[in-house]
This record gives sequence, structure tokens and C-alpha cells, in this order.
Amino acid sequence: MTGRLRIAVLGASGYTGADLVRLALAHPRMEIAALSANAKAGQTMAAIWPHLVMYQALPPLVRAEEIDFGGIDAVFGCLPHAASAQLLSTINGPRIIDLSADFRLKDAGVYADWYGSAHPAPGLLAEAVYGLTEFARAALPAARIAACPGCYPTAVLLALLPLMAAHAIGADNITINALSGVSGAGRSLKEANLFGEVAEAVHAYGIGHHRHMPEMEQELGLRAGRAVTISFTPHLVPMNRGELVTCIVETPHGPDYLREVLADAYTAEPFVHLLPAGVAPATRMVRGSNHCVMNVFADRVPGRAIVIAAIDNLVKGSSGQAVQNFNLMFGLPETMGLEQAPLFP
Amino acid sequence: MTGRLRIAVLGASGYTGADLVRLALAHPRMEIAALSANAKAGQTMAAIWPHLVMYQALPPLVRAEEIDFGGIDAVFGCLPHAASAQLLSTINGPRIIDLSADFRLKDAGVYADWYGSAHPAPGLLAEAVYGLTEFARAALPAARIAACPGCYPTAVLLALLPLMAAHAIGADNITINALSGVSGAGRSLKEANLFGEVAEAVHAYGIGHHRHMPEMEQELGLRAGRAVTISFTPHLVPMNRGELVTCIVETPHGPDYLREVLADAYTAEPFVHLLPAGVAPATRMVRGSNHCVMNVFADRVPGRAIVIAAIDNLVKGSSGQAVQNFNLMFGLPETMGLEQAPLFP
Amino acid sequence: MTGRLRIAVLGASGYTGADLVRLALAHPRMEIAALSANAKAGQTMAAIWPHLVMYQALPPLVRAEEIDFGGIDAVFGCLPHAASAQLLSTINGPRIIDLSADFRLKDAGVYADWYGSAHPAPGLLAEAVYGLTEFARAALPAARIAACPGCYPTAVLLALLPLMAAHAIGADNITINALSGVSGAGRSLKEANLFGEVAEAVHAYGIGHHRHMPEMEQELGLRAGRAVTISFTPHLVPMNRGELVTCIVETPHGPDYLREVLADAYTAEPFVHLLPAGVAPATRMVRGSNHCVMNVFADRVPGRAIVIAAIDNLVKGSSGQAVQNFNLMFGLPETMGLEQAPLFP
Amino acid sequence: MTGRLRIAVLGASGYTGADLVRLALAHPRMEIAALSANAKAGQTMAAIWPHLVMYQALPPLVRAEEIDFGGIDAVFGCLPHAASAQLLSTINGPRIIDLSADFRLKDAGVYADWYGSAHPAPGLLAEAVYGLTEFARAALPAARIAACPGCYPTAVLLALLPLMAAHAIGADNITINALSGVSGAGRSLKEANLFGEVAEAVHAYGIGHHRHMPEMEQELGLRAGRAVTISFTPHLVPMNRGELVTCIVETPHGPDYLREVLADAYTAEPFVHLLPAGVAPATRMVRGSNHCVMNVFADRVPGRAIVIAAIDNLVKGSSGQAVQNFNLMFGLPETMGLEQAPLFP
Repeated sequence: MTGRLRIAVLGASGYTGADLVRLALAHPRMEIAALSANAKAGQTMAAIWPHLVMYQALPPLVRAEEIDFGGIDAVFGCLPHAASAQLLSTINGPRIIDLSADFRLKDAGVYADWYGSAHPAPGLLAEAVYGLTEFARAALPAARIAACPGCYPTAVLLALLPLMAAHAIGADNITINALSGVSGAGRSLKEANLFGEVAEAVHAYGIGHHRHMPEMEQELGLRAGRAVTISFTPHLVPMNRGELVTCIVETPHGPDYLREVLADAYTAEPFVHLLPAGVAPATRMVRGSNHCVMNVFADRVPGRAIVIAAIDNLVKGSSGQAVQNFNLMFGLPETMGLEQAPLFP
Repeated sequence: MTGRLRIAVLGASGYTGADLVRLALAHPRMEIAALSANAKAGQTMAAIWPHLVMYQALPPLVRAEEIDFGGIDAVFGCLPHAASAQLLSTINGPRIIDLSADFRLKDAGVYADWYGSAHPAPGLLAEAVYGLTEFARAALPAARIAACPGCYPTAVLLALLPLMAAHAIGADNITINALSGVSGAGRSLKEANLFGEVAEAVHAYGIGHHRHMPEMEQELGLRAGRAVTISFTPHLVPMNRGELVTCIVETPHGPDYLREVLADAYTAEPFVHLLPAGVAPATRMVRGSNHCVMNVFADRVPGRAIVIAAIDNLVKGSSGQAVQNFNLMFGLPETMGLEQAPLFP
Repeated sequence: MTGRLRIAVLGASGYTGADLVRLALAHPRMEIAALSANAKAGQTMAAIWPHLVMYQALPPLVRAEEIDFGGIDAVFGCLPHAASAQLLSTINGPRIIDLSADFRLKDAGVYADWYGSAHPAPGLLAEAVYGLTEFARAALPAARIAACPGCYPTAVLLALLPLMAAHAIGADNITINALSGVSGAGRSLKEANLFGEVAEAVHAYGIGHHRHMPEMEQELGLRAGRAVTISFTPHLVPMNRGELVTCIVETPHGPDYLREVLADAYTAEPFVHLLPAGVAPATRMVRGSNHCVMNVFADRVPGRAIVIAAIDNLVKGSSGQAVQNFNLMFGLPETMGLEQAPLFP
Repeated sequence: MTGRLRIAVLGASGYTGADLVRLALAHPRMEIAALSANAKAGQTMAAIWPHLVMYQALPPLVRAEEIDFGGIDAVFGCLPHAASAQLLSTINGPRIIDLSADFRLKDAGVYADWYGSAHPAPGLLAEAVYGLTEFARAALPAARIAACPGCYPTAVLLALLPLMAAHAIGADNITINALSGVSGAGRSLKEANLFGEVAEAVHAYGIGHHRHMPEMEQELGLRAGRAVTISFTPHLVPMNRGELVTCIVETPHGPDYLREVLADAYTAEPFVHLLPAGVAPATRMVRGSNHCVMNVFADRVPGRAIVIAAIDNLVKGSSGQAVQNFNLMFGLPETMGLEQAPLFP
């Protein structure tokens, strides 16, 4: 083992930033060199995060502009969209793994439509690699910018991309229902995130217009060879971590064939697992880990199938995949720092 | 106010039986005359139910055959399927409100297909009234047997029947994703119902073949004027009570028109509520109450809409609707004993 | 039944205000005439509370000073301390049931010590009745102001007052550990109330100096005939409703004798229940109801006993007890509007 | 790094067994050589544990007597009490880390009193080392049998042993209230463990006679130099993992002095952390990790203090501490395989 790579985490006061730090602490080749959180600059991670209370030696939180990026090997961007691209476009030198939405869409016009303002750095979109790791291994080693997928797209695309690429499913009428734990909404002080609102309750949100939609359509369209329009309805469920996507697809094939396609795609994958026939994916299978589990079932409506996948939204759906991309970008074993088995119960 | 009607609850050791008793205790015209629970005969409700510990005066649990049905006005059947019809078919005199699946399907062949054995009392199917109250008001006053709908069908049919009856939605490709709290699985000792398995976790179950499907297809088909085949995927979420159904339907109309149809159908209903435009139904709106809330949203896929409804699975989805049916059968105000507002938080 | 009494609820945007409204909706002699919430004036309860979304006919939220108290029979104060006494001291005419801390302590100096500022209306303290209903029945019918106890004091005092009054327990070394659901913290936007912080977690708070302590000491001292100093450690647990207090007391008697004292005190009470010997009180026994359950156990340390009680903090610990007091103040049956059995699961 | 040590886990179908396997999978010097679970022999861990579904290569579950202990370096006993000592007493060769209660008490008579039957292997009690790691470092390297403490004793003794050893607290009237997540009750099919019973609810159990009491009294008595009798009341709270103990102790000293004693004791400890003054220990600080956090607070009753500690009951309170002991027994770095930061949210 050689020396450690110095990383900076921008936006360390959010859940994805904190989970990045959690993973980095256990990563044998990472050194946490700088942590930013503009609104909490001057505080420590130990003071603002309960689970880091014993990590008093972490660098203090600073404003992003106070960081000397000269000595940084990799920057993890855990900032809100727009703010992320604005800041990252000013950084030269370190390689960038961005967890925001800013570098996922290739078309700045689509970005403007969904995010409500012009893209802050459209010139960088071409070079950014869409970092759904299992489908980006060729491009990541040379990439300067990796754009980590959204949590929902990670689960959906892992489930559907091999099927679409094999033209085993149709490009029309893809209907996705998704369930997410509350950490997906971040640690912000909104009434909707209070325990009293969330516990013992479920509801749908972003109905018909969630911002993860164009990203899924972009990637599915690339494999379909034409534009794809999906139906996507996410729901908030009373748990901290975990994401489950239930995809109804049109297909002339039975579940056995679709399972074969997925088995072929993922047989050697360390983190993506086709479950035995009939076993329903559950978020408790992957909690706290970088794993994804999936399976295919017959639908009662002829000509359709049900594809279900589960991930931990903060790990494979966010910070874990970011570390996985980091490993590939720096020539490290892809699973380094991510070998932890899921936590159950 | 005149005298009280004497009721018997069969299967009072299950969640629906216990919730029936909870509601009956507050009902000004019910007298709980007999309670059965074969496996727990000899015990008291106060001993087996935490929330009834202070109701020491309830009748003791007996075996069903020990009940003298001669003095009973109404029997609430909270037994498992098959056992329910077997027992209820032997009872003459009292009127019957059955919460099991046994009298919901009109076709004994369909019952046999889905429940795996011949119907125990096919001769009674014709006279049983499908007790989705809002659509059964004409038939209930004279009915001897009311078959209360399943919890999922209650939410789905309240949302879709007016739209289907108005031919405002298509009969094909109805895709329903549903979320349910754990009480829907009953109080049985299964590993899947343990706190450790359920908390902080979600998964789908009964994928493609849940037993509530034929019931929904039957009722939708009656309004469509032809056979309907639906896609239905229920998920278990970590909460006790509550059910949310998200229905993707084909329609040439926009959500505004569909909302008008529902508004017309339910404007005078005491328990069914179309929410203001844009407000997402949530189970926390109805917890512990007999209310149902619903709304319609645009889907991103052209030619479709998203109809969402929420209920408390044990109340409107089960025992509350049973009381509502009882009220109609006995000429009482429909809301009697059900006026309680939801419990939040 | 005669006419309805017109009530005003001040502070209807908080949990206790909302639960007061929930109970008032089912109360046969209450008419909700006015609702205040200064920060949300102009909005409706249906807009700000999920479970009241179907109650569109409730009066709109106004600023407290906009209410014409001339036509009001009873005012329920659900405001923060200090603000409550400031406002209520200006109201003449209606009878006042205050749920804040402002009228609980008889000594304005003690109030100032614990609440950090002088009492806004010390002249009213003498006439206010400490509204632990079961111990205030003589005084409430003539009271102009009822001061509803805090949630923790309600549970603790119901458990200990009869024992202290009978000198069956000592006045020294009373050690109380308490557990509360999150609704006790209100609906305010604090990081500590977020689902992500609360779920799957417990911690103590207000350690050694919680503001409910002087109130318990005052009432225990009155029965002991001398000053009492208690140890009290509350903990936050991941649930919405419910409160459990575990009191370690010094006593020369065994649990059987203490149970006899409590049985004598509460045998005829509609809402306070001594459980059968050996049965542990649990919050699931009382959720959503005005009931209190309690029991006594032997401690392993000689000369001590363990007395445990459970309530729903928002009902018997707050709004339910307020309604109970209202009933007594207006000569109504004490249980009116509070007969609802607990909700389980 | 040299070769791996071959371990056997007996009782791998329980929570402590499963968490042992989870940790072993990430331990660089462990090889999981054998797994037993008598009732589930013939099945795989991947089939019975959701979070191990992707670990298809684990050894199959066998009956304990099928294991060839000749090739095993260390046996982890995760069996129920009595069964554990019966089996382990027949094993020669491998070193034994027992997580059951069987080797914790030095006095077979006390064992018989609390566990209701004679100790199965009293001859082994003398050689077993009570494996509260931080206090057993001298003995563990040469120990053949390490008896891992119970979860509650781990938290309580870490908090109180240094204080008792320094005679900074009294040996009388130690009053402990404890909160535990449900995993402490195991994965057994009991009604009390169902989600419906546990969620949104709390209650005390084992009141006055929990089996972890003699173990705490034994270890506290060793430091006090005389017999100690404690009061201990555990409560079940609705979460999976985590344990919090709130200890009321008699002391002539203020919290500052007690904090100094603890700071001296634990300043160099990798897993035991005295929090900054005033910060309340919370289970969310340690979830999924081997860490323990603690702090001291003033009690309102003069002459007493409140000492609070939090652990993850399955890690530091069980399997993690077992691994920590293993490391010491085999001369490995004590933190090996346990460096994972806590999981939050």
C-alpha cells in the first residue's frame, strides 16, 4: 500500500457529505484533508453530527473558498444543485466526484427545464462522465469529473439498463413506483421532515414531475436508441435509509428470460445481485451497504413484467457509489472501503 | 334513542375483531353480547389486548359454537377465509356483516382459483351484498349478508369506480402500487411481522398474485361493462395503520376533469374526500378514522393520469366500514359511532 | 341535551391545540367558535393539519386579539408559557382552561426561578385551580381558571399522590425516570425533532433541571406536609404519543400494600386504572385515549418499590384532561367526549 | 499480515450470531470456517438473513455436533444460556469466546438462583475471564474462555467501574434505568416482538429481577470491596439497536470530579468516550459501531449524580466486544475489524 490520497468534501453538513466522511474514515487510501459547510463554518463534524462525536481529529468545517485545492487529489461535491456547478467550475487540479444533479444531464436545455434556471457551467457537461459505476468503468479512469447519479436513477437504471440495452423490454409505458426513506430529503428544517409528520405515515410526492426523471429518461433513451418518457411516482416512507423501485415494463418475454439477461449482466459484480427466483428485494437486505439487490416477477397483465430493485439511498444511491467511482478514477480496487456487510436489524 | 342492538364478534383475537370492538364500545346503539376466539377461548379481551385492559366488563372469549345466536341481532365475522363461510352458513336469524373474503366474489369458480379450495357455501354468494358502503346504499337495508371489501379494494374502488362508471378512464393497463402498514398482516406469529424485520425496511409482497386482485377486477368490470385485468403490487411499510394506493390509469382527460367526476360523486359523502388540487393524499390524514382522502394528478406519460387514495386499513378498510354497513342495515344514521376525527400525530 | 357551549382555542397551530380541536369535534356539548394562531393567522386548520383536512368548516385561524371573547363560554389556552398568562390575564368573562405552565405553580418566585422571568400575572395564581382532575373535583366547578398539569406531572402525580397522602411512601429520594414520545416537543422546526434524529434512537434531555420538576415537588410536598425534592430524568423515545414514568420510592411496605392504597383511590375512576398484579403498564394501552394505567412492583433494593404509570401525553397529559376539567367546570358528565377507547395497534 | 484464523460461530441463526458473522466478514484475520444453528441446519445464512443474501459462499448451517473443532482456532458461542455451557464444556482445543450468560458469574450458586437450574459446567467458571474488554486486557491474552458481558452490564459497568474503583461513588442505592432496542429480545417468534406491539410504544420489563443484575452486582462489588445490591429497571423502546443506561448514584463529588475520573480512565481508549460537558449520550451516536459514549450530570437531589452511557447492544454490547476480546486473545490489534464509524441516520 502506498500513500493516501487527500480528499476534500464540500457540503459536509448534509447527509451525503456525512456519509461520505463515514466511508472515508474506513477507506485505507483516503485522507480527509478538508471539509466545507458554509453555514456551519467554524464548527466541527463532532459537534454537528451525533455519530462523529468521537472523531475529534477531523478537519474543522470551513467555507469552501478557504480550501487550498492545490494539495487536494479529489473533491467530493455534496452541495445543492446549481451551487455545486458554480463552485466546482472554479476548481482546477483535483479530480471531481460530484453528487449533485449538475453534471448528470448532457443537455443544458433539459437541465434548465427541470431545474428552473440556466446551467451554471454548460461547458463542462461534455466531459463529465455519468457515474453509474457498473456502466462507466471504461470512462472513469480518465475522467476529470464524475457525475454520480441520483439515488432513484441508480436503482432504476441498474434494474433496467441491461434489459433495455438487450431490447428485452419496451421503451414505452415504463411505470415506476418508488419508495424512499426520509434521509433522501436531507437534514433540512422542514415541517415535512419532522418525526411527527413522517412516523406512522406514507404519501407520494413530486408526483409526475420529480427531478430524477430526465436523468432516467436520458440513460434509458441512450440504450433504447430513441427518446423515452417514463412515469415515476416516489413515495416517502417512515424509515431513515433505503430505497425500493418497482418498475412495470412491457416485454414479450417472461421473467425467466429477463432474469437471464440480468444474471448475465451482473454475475461478476461485487455490489449488484440478482436474487434467487421468487425472492422479493427488500431494503433491509442492503441497509448501510453499497449493495443493490433486484429481481423480476410476472405481472398479471399479459405482456408485462415487474422489475424491483433495492439500495441504500445514501450509500449505493449516493456516497458509496461516489467512493466506488473514486476508486476507479484512481486505479484502486473498486470495492476498497466498501466491503462492509449490510446492517440488520 | 331506543334500545341497543346485540352484536356478536367472531374472531375477536385478531386486529379487525379488536378494532370492531373498539368502535362498538363507542357506538351508542351497539351492545357487545358475545365474543369468540377459538384458540383463546376462556380468556378475556382485557388479557389479550393491551388497549382493552381497562374494559374488564366485556364478555369473555368463547368458542363460536358456544354462542346462542338466538338473541343476537348482528354477527360481525372477523375470521379467516373459508372458516368464515363455513361458520356463517350455519347461522340463521342475525344479520351478518362479514369482513373475510368469503362473500366478496360472485363467482365461486374465481374464488376457488384464488383461494385454492372450493367455496364452502356457494349458495349464499348471490344474496350477499358487496359492502363498499358508498356504492351499496340501495341494497344494504334489506341485505341479510354484507360482504365487506378488502382493505386494498376499498381504497382502489373508491378512487376508480366513479371514473370507470363515467367511462372517464380506460379499462386496460390499470397499474396499481399499494403501500400498507403491518396491521394488514394480522397479529400472527410470523418472522416477517417482527419489529426487527419490519422497522427501517420496505419490500413488495404478493407480487402479481395478491388475493385482493379478483375483487377489484370484479367491481371494475361491472362498471366497465367487460372483463378487466389489473396490475397490482402491494408493499409493506414500517407503520401500524394506513394504506395508500397509487393508480396509473389511461384516460383522454386531464386531471381537472377526473377531479370533477370525483367531486360530483363524493361531494355529499361524510367519509370520502377529494382533496384540493395538488394536495397529495397521506395516510396521516386518516389514521384511526373512517375517512378516505383522494386526488388526481397528471402523469408525465401522455394519455394517463395518477389517482391516489389513502385510508386506515383497519377502519375504512375493515372494521369501520363494517360498522358503516351495520348502520345502514339497521336504519341508523350512517355515521353513527364513526365520527371520531383522525389521530395525529 | 341542551345547547352547545362556545369555546375558543388559543394556539391551535400546536399539537395540544390540534388535539383539543380533535376532541372538541367529537364532544356533544362543544361548539368551536374561535381558533387563534398568530403566526398562521389567515390560514385554516384544514390547510395546516393533515388530519383535519376534511374539516373545512372549522373557523379560520385568527390572531388572538381578533377574537370577541364576549360570546365565548370557555377559552382553552394552548400557548407557550409567559405568552399564555400575558394574554389570558386580559380576558374577562369566559372561563379559562390553560394548558401552559403559567398557572400551575402557586409561588411566583419559584416560577421565576424555573422559567427565567417574572410571572406575567402573579395576581391570578391564587385563584387558579391545579387541574389534576381526579384531585380537583371539589374546586373545579367554581373555578374561573383551571391550570392543567404538565404531561409528566400528570402521570407521576396520579401514581404517587395517593401513596404520599397516605404516607405509604417516603418524601425523600424519589427517583423518576420518564420516557416520552416526540409530540411532547411540539411541532417546532428544530433539528432535534427531525425523523432522522429521532427514529432508531433514544437519549435523555433536561437532565436534572426539567421544568416539570417544581410542579411535581409542589404537589407532592402538599401531601407530604413538607418540602420534597425529586430526581427526574426524562428521555425522548422514537414514537409520536405516549409517556411512561418509572418511579423508585422508599417505603416500608411491599407492593401489595401500595397496590391496595391505589386500588382504594382509583376503584371508581373512569380513566385511572390499577393493572392486575404483575402486569407492566405500557403506553400502547392508552394511545389516543384519556386513560392512565399504573402498577407497583418490588424493587431488589430493600425498603423501596417501583411505581410505573403510562398515559398518552397529548390526551390525559394535556388536551384530554383539559376537556375533563371543562366538563367539571360546566357541570357536564366528566367523561363526555372522552369515551373513545385507545387505538391499537 | 499472516494467515487467517479459523472461527466457528455457534448459534448463527440469532441476532448476536448474525452480527458476529457481519463483523467477521470485514475482519482481515478471520476466516469463517463453520456455522451452526441446530433448528435451521441445512439452510444457508443467505436464506435466513436478509442482509446476508449476497453472501452465498458462507459455510452452510450445520448442527453443532457436526463441526470438526480440530481445525478451529476460535469458537464464538452465541447460544442460549445453559445450552451454551453444555456444549462448550465438551470442546477442547479452540479458544472460546462465549456470548451467553453461562460463564459470567463466578458463583455457581448465584447462577442457579437467577437462571433456575444448576450450572452445567461449574468447573469452568474459575478459568473464564469476564470479558469487559477495557478491564480484562491483562487476562485475555492467556485466557481459554472469555465470557462476554451482557449488553446492559457492558454499558453500566463501563460507566460505573472506574468511579467505584476510585470510591468516587457509593455502593448503596445505585438506581439504574435502562432503555433497549428490540434486538435485545432476539429474533424469536413472540407476540411481544411483533411490530404492532413494539412500534409507537414503550414499557418496562423484567422489573426488579432482570438476569443481568447479578452480573453487575458481582463486578461492582469487586471494586467496592463488599456486596452491592442494585435497582435496575429495563424498558423496551421502539428501535432495532441501541441501549442507554441512566444511573443515579450517591456521591460526595460534583459531576466535574466524576468526569475527571472517567476522563483519566478512558482518555486513551479507542472505543470508550467521555463526551464534552453537558452533551447527553444518545444511541444514535454509536449505532452499528463498537463505541460507547458516556457523561455525568448533576442531580437535583443533593449528594447524587446521574451517569449516562450509550452503546449498540449488538456490537459493543455483544458481538463487537466479542471480536475485541478475540483480537486480544490472539495478539491482534484490539480495534481490528471494528473501525467502522457509526451509521447515522
